[in-house]
Amino acid sequence: MTSIPRSLRLAVIAGALVGAAAAIAQQAPKPENLIKWRQSAFQVVAWNSGRIKSSLDSGYNKEQVLKAATAIAAIANSGLGSLFPAGTETGKGWHDTTAKAELFANSAKFAELGGDFGKESGELVRVVSSGADAAAVKDQFGKLQKTCKSCHDEFRNAN
Amino acid sequence: MTSIPRSLRLAVIAGALVGAAAAIAQQAPKPENLIKWRQSAFQVVAWNSGRIKSSLDSGYNKEQVLKAATAIAAIANSGLGSLFPAGTETGKGWHDTTAKAELFANSAKFAELGGDFGKESGELVRVVSSGADAAAVKDQFGKLQKTCKSCHDEFRNAN
Repeated sequence: MTSIPRSLRLAVIAGALVGAAAAIAQQAPKPENLIKWRQSAFQVVAWNSGRIKSSLDSGYNKEQVLKAATAIAAIANSGLGSLFPAGTETGKGWHDTTAKAELFANSAKFAELGGDFGKESGELVRVVSSGADAAAVKDQFGKLQKTCKSCHDEFRNAN
Repeated sequence: MTSIPRSLRLAVIAGALVGAAAAIAQQAPKPENLIKWRQSAFQVVAWNSGRIKSSLDSGYNKEQVLKAATAIAAIANSGLGSLFPAGTETGKGWHDTTAKAELFANSAKFAELGGDFGKESGELVRVVSSGADAAAVKDQFGKLQKTCKSCHDEFRNAN
């Protein structure tokens, strides 16, 4: 060690610290971004749920419903829970968060309800892909919507 | 017809018109919702692109990248073009639209670039699923990012 000038050693340590800080910054997005992303994710779910409802109400179109169901299932199974870390109980993304304090206090229940959402949306993709008729698709879509409502009732404040 | 009272016939016609109006309203979401949904969709893509970049920069995690890539591909192939109909050239969703007028004037080019986005994101899912190494995933992620940039350069105003 004595052959390395002290100034160089300090520069190396400083560089490592900058690197570590950058890594931490990268791993921890800002709360306002996390809230914006989760609000965006649920808007995309709302868009696609509306498309499915509209298709079921006005002559079922398998191709359209499959695209919409696939988008919902991919989002539902993407790891949405990571968008609700401690530190985001309050705050503003596109708008003030509507997540209830209970969500952060009961992460096991939130994970369970999120799991139901992932499972029923994945099942909707399977039912639509199988070529089932509109009645069967509507039935499974109803099951999916119940998982939305369960979680909203428990963990979302009214807008 | 003469056996049916005129008032009843008028009521039936009025009812049919209300039903038709409701159907049209259902089929045509408001411009502000379309703009909000497209802004949300691209935010979800940004979230998941950031996760992929972060994973590639800090020790590749296949499971995380697969979830993120699947979400991007599902959105890219969901029919995003339908969120850019005539009548949404200007307006506000979460914020004023950043779509350029050129996008609406050149829908064939927009569809082509959107098709590239769908194709390269689908290919990323395939590469990740295949168990390819981080270098191959990074290469395909680079191809995907180029499709984002191509479309932004052509059709998106800077924020």
